[in-house]
Amino acid sequence: MPAKAGDDRPVERLSPRQRDALLPGLEAWTLADDGAAIARRFVFGDFVAAFGFMTRAAIVAERMNHHPEWANVYNRVDVRLTTHDADGLSMRDIALARALDALAASA
Amino acid sequence: MPAKAGDDRPVERLSPRQRDALLPGLEAWTLADDGAAIARRFVFGDFVAAFGFMTRAAIVAERMNHHPEWANVYNRVDVRLTTHDADGLSMRDIALARALDALAASA
Amino acid sequence: MPAKAGDDRPVERLSPRQRDALLPGLEAWTLADDGAAIARRFVFGDFVAAFGFMTRAAIVAERMNHHPEWANVYNRVDVRLTTHDADGLSMRDIALARALDALAASA
Amino acid sequence: MPAKAGDDRPVERLSPRQRDALLPGLEAWTLADDGAAIARRFVFGDFVAAFGFMTRAAIVAERMNHHPEWANVYNRVDVRLTTHDADGLSMRDIALARALDALAASA
Repeated sequence: MPAKAGDDRPVERLSPRQRDALLPGLEAWTLADDGAAIARRFVFGDFVAAFGFMTRAAIVAERMNHHPEWANVYNRVDVRLTTHDADGLSMRDIALARALDALAASA
Repeated sequence: MPAKAGDDRPVERLSPRQRDALLPGLEAWTLADDGAAIARRFVFGDFVAAFGFMTRAAIVAERMNHHPEWANVYNRVDVRLTTHDADGLSMRDIALARALDALAASA
Repeated sequence: MPAKAGDDRPVERLSPRQRDALLPGLEAWTLADDGAAIARRFVFGDFVAAFGFMTRAAIVAERMNHHPEWANVYNRVDVRLTTHDADGLSMRDIALARALDALAASA
Repeated sequence: MPAKAGDDRPVERLSPRQRDALLPGLEAWTLADDGAAIARRFVFGDFVAAFGFMTRAAIVAERMNHHPEWANVYNRVDVRLTTHDADGLSMRDIALARALDALAASA
């Protein structure tokens, strides 16, 4: 995981062209109908594994200064990413989505 | 916090009379329209405080073997409690609600 | 992970014979010179992974009502298990050691 | 808690004069005999409270990119801060000590 803080990443809204170029790397994520958010469901073996993922994700999100909207029921974690300051998707969402995918892959 | 595990608490659905006798002690919680769940929003100073609460709540929930449905956005944690095996509210929800209230009061 | 709470496990001190029969299943752990504790160092990729392990371990330890003595420096977690009530090793330490091994294997 | 990442804080070793000017604000901390580290014991009501503190501290430490050496036994957390790159105390230790004091005060 890169130690670099995410504060410097631009929060400008991605253009549809930029967005569509980035999404192929995030195949487990679904683009919202309005194009303003991406969402993914993570499923783990049990609650302990799900919350271990959430803790690692919380640390990474705070370090990136970009936080998910997320819900948990037992072994499921539903994550939604958007950038309020951009009124849509920014590079911060892409970066956080990639980081969460990496965390889940090692859970 | 009592060390006793919650496994032994009955999971039978509370009768409306039982429920109404217990809810006055849970004034920050809202009863769902169908009476099958209670919900509360917890608000903290920042994400770090919110996630610290969630971690303590996760430990307590696992110990009680009864887990919340919950969502987090930055400093807010929305919790919904119900007992699937009872198809409604049971004493487990009441006990977990009380425990979460106690944790939030010391956050 | 079994949902069963650990409260019922006997806290009697294991005899040397019992202990020696159980340790072959815990090959990554070292027996203290006085035979009263076992210890293991867990090493992870970074601090985030180490703390994710610690969070899962904390939940499991509380559920078992048996807690580790542990230290963390960045990506390392040094765990020492003993049962104070038994003045030595009990089945609770064996059970917690097995649980921690399982958690680390899925980290 | 300031959102600013700690990466930019100088890691140069504090001079004895600088150090002695800063320590009065950290009265619960003890300076090591060799002057190269500070240490504090935090005591909480139970394991759940102690680990809630550790989780908040872990998030803050990662955000500051400066990590504690710490040990936990049930409701106690022993923290030692030093800056390896400075071979002694730097402003990063002072900043992290202040942050941990603030977290413990709200636990």
